[in-house]
Amino acid sequence: MTKNDYLKLNYKPNYQNEIVATFYGESRLSLKELAIKTAEESSIGTWTKINTLSSDILKRLAARIFYVNVKTGIFKIAYPLALFEPASIPQLLSSIAGNIFSMKAVKNLRLEDIEFPEKYINKYPGPKWGISGIRKITGIYNRPLIGCIIKPKLGLTSSQNAELAAQIFKNGVDVIKDDENLTDLSFNRFTDRVKKVLLLKKQVEKQTGKKKIYVFNVTAPTEIMLKRSAFVKKIGGQCVMIDVITAGWAGVQSLRNADLGLIIHGHRAGHSTFTRNKKHGISMLVLANLARLAGVDQFHTGTVVGKMEGEEEEVIKINELLKEDWREFNKLRENWGKLRPVLPIASGGLHPGLTDKLMKILGHDLIINFGGGIHGHPRGSLAGARAAKQAIEATIKKIPLKIYARDHLELKEALEHWGFK
Amino acid sequence: MTKNDYLKLNYKPNYQNEIVATFYGESRLSLKELAIKTAEESSIGTWTKINTLSSDILKRLAARIFYVNVKTGIFKIAYPLALFEPASIPQLLSSIAGNIFSMKAVKNLRLEDIEFPEKYINKYPGPKWGISGIRKITGIYNRPLIGCIIKPKLGLTSSQNAELAAQIFKNGVDVIKDDENLTDLSFNRFTDRVKKVLLLKKQVEKQTGKKKIYVFNVTAPTEIMLKRSAFVKKIGGQCVMIDVITAGWAGVQSLRNADLGLIIHGHRAGHSTFTRNKKHGISMLVLANLARLAGVDQFHTGTVVGKMEGEEEEVIKINELLKEDWREFNKLRENWGKLRPVLPIASGGLHPGLTDKLMKILGHDLIINFGGGIHGHPRGSLAGARAAKQAIEATIKKIPLKIYARDHLELKEALEHWGFK
Repeated sequence: MTKNDYLKLNYKPNYQNEIVATFYGESRLSLKELAIKTAEESSIGTWTKINTLSSDILKRLAARIFYVNVKTGIFKIAYPLALFEPASIPQLLSSIAGNIFSMKAVKNLRLEDIEFPEKYINKYPGPKWGISGIRKITGIYNRPLIGCIIKPKLGLTSSQNAELAAQIFKNGVDVIKDDENLTDLSFNRFTDRVKKVLLLKKQVEKQTGKKKIYVFNVTAPTEIMLKRSAFVKKIGGQCVMIDVITAGWAGVQSLRNADLGLIIHGHRAGHSTFTRNKKHGISMLVLANLARLAGVDQFHTGTVVGKMEGEEEEVIKINELLKEDWREFNKLRENWGKLRPVLPIASGGLHPGLTDKLMKILGHDLIINFGGGIHGHPRGSLAGARAAKQAIEATIKKIPLKIYARDHLELKEALEHWGFK
Repeated sequence: MTKNDYLKLNYKPNYQNEIVATFYGESRLSLKELAIKTAEESSIGTWTKINTLSSDILKRLAARIFYVNVKTGIFKIAYPLALFEPASIPQLLSSIAGNIFSMKAVKNLRLEDIEFPEKYINKYPGPKWGISGIRKITGIYNRPLIGCIIKPKLGLTSSQNAELAAQIFKNGVDVIKDDENLTDLSFNRFTDRVKKVLLLKKQVEKQTGKKKIYVFNVTAPTEIMLKRSAFVKKIGGQCVMIDVITAGWAGVQSLRNADLGLIIHGHRAGHSTFTRNKKHGISMLVLANLARLAGVDQFHTGTVVGKMEGEEEEVIKINELLKEDWREFNKLRENWGKLRPVLPIASGGLHPGLTDKLMKILGHDLIINFGGGIHGHPRGSLAGARAAKQAIEATIKKIPLKIYARDHLELKEALEHWGFK
């Protein structure tokens, strides 16, 4: 039960049978000592030597620190799979992202990355639809989906909401969503909104011959969330949104496990309470991993160019993680097993003038969400929707926005209003 | 739609009809500008002027900044109740603790406190049992409950777990709990543990004539959590634990809303990812507020003296908030309405030598949880249990631990082993 029970710098992790976590740490203790305390508290140890911890348990279940780099502050720990309940994100986090952050020895501690064995991954359902499913539903294969958030966040009645959505759908938008705080409110009841929106959406689909998706925010205590989702399904909707952080992983997993056949849209409101500090908390990369395991089909990951923080390199890495079937790490491939790829969403402070740059950075497998960037157009939301569509068309055709704007009035107005990058 | 729509420094908040949030902020902008961006993003605005935001909506729903103090970095915002869905913590957080933390304008931002109108509070169930209910169930009225965490966190079989619990119960402990990462594991299945523990617990209760509580950790995706809780109830248990942060509020509320008649024990593993930085994130005080609304009966709040961080003043404030029927704030009383008081739990790095100081700081309405502080006793867990009981007896009788230890061997050994404060 000495420190060496956890510190095994010559150990080669077994990526088939261990979960490997990468931490950044700072402490009044040495980094090695911090790593030991972290390994203890996140597996089977505690602050003092205990009599009930047998050498057999220690051998089977102790976490192993196999890498410590005092220059970078990085250490890595391998955890035997037996420590984890299959397909439970709450239990995973209670283990390796729980008490450790509270330890007095910690000055800063950040869970930077997690790598899972394929057999652990395959216990999760992953996305029902994922990128290919969503592309099939919409019939759009060669460009990003154009998304729009109904704005103001709150305040429209269900009728106003439905009419606005229909007009925006008509003018070229593929996916329209509720904002993160619009659920069931006195002036815009959830069931009214679903009925009215879906009725008008059907009409637009008939008129335009194009499939549209409306994303209903079902965020609530789990039983209410499931009831609302079942209602969306019953009335003919295809997609629901959950605020994954404020609802929490038990709720996210239950929504997926209920297997209602709906696309699950994951909003990340609140993540920056613990992802923003680059020295403490949990990285957005880890969050994206968890969203994929839980079965989120499309997930907010960052815009690089918009109103929300998120650096280019990080957002690209996150999106690649969601889109790929495997990733290269430590020269080993983490295989995503049977789990479908997730469609990344860029959302927050986007306007048509940013589309060009955004797609250059993040590619075509993307939902580009405009809120203010559509409803703030000088001639209103419909012109805004057209401008957004024109901007994406231009980028796909590899025509500079400024050139395309010459004979596309709404785009011209948008560029004049917001400028472009 | 100018900035003044949100900034109303002469406004007097209406504590009967508004939720008031206190923030600490730092920005490259002025504090006023940061406050405006925060108020916009957390109510109905966005990064650009939008056409769909009518003056009527603005008047009814805009948040109002009524206090800005550049010296302290504190600003306060009043939110009309119409912005919030009744009895939904996820929706509350998506509004006032969501996107704001991601804004590029933010250098640091922390939600320090929330005050709720009584009519908002009363839409929540609050604790089923709370302090008085738990005291009634245990028959213990005049001292803290003595708690013990089974250790090692993971590794014991269900039989070993049950036998250890029975021995500790016999030696004076009132409440024994699973650790935060022990759920349903291959070597200790949940249903086996419930059956074996409750069988032996019944025997001990018969032998000792005292009621004991075992806290089963049901943390999991919601539907599994509810199934496990129903099983605990069926087999005759009284209490389940949920890791509120890693499971999330949708799960916590669903567990309470299912109204199974069980005591809900709230563990806070993971909270330090966002509570620890005193400049950014969400305060532990806010978390305690939410736990009470959601209906957690007993909640981990800090030890001051143990292994986890948490300053004296803060932990006292949190515990008072949970225990009182009202609190004084801005010279106004926040009334907890019909919601029962919550029993605070001190847990993490405690040993018998700290009991004296701990009770001086935190009082008698408390569960004092020992893990390593019982299982690490030089003569094992049973001696540890006795030492813990003796330490609390001594403190209640106002006899110094060192004096009481003279004719209480186990306490003497514990003090020699760990020292005391």
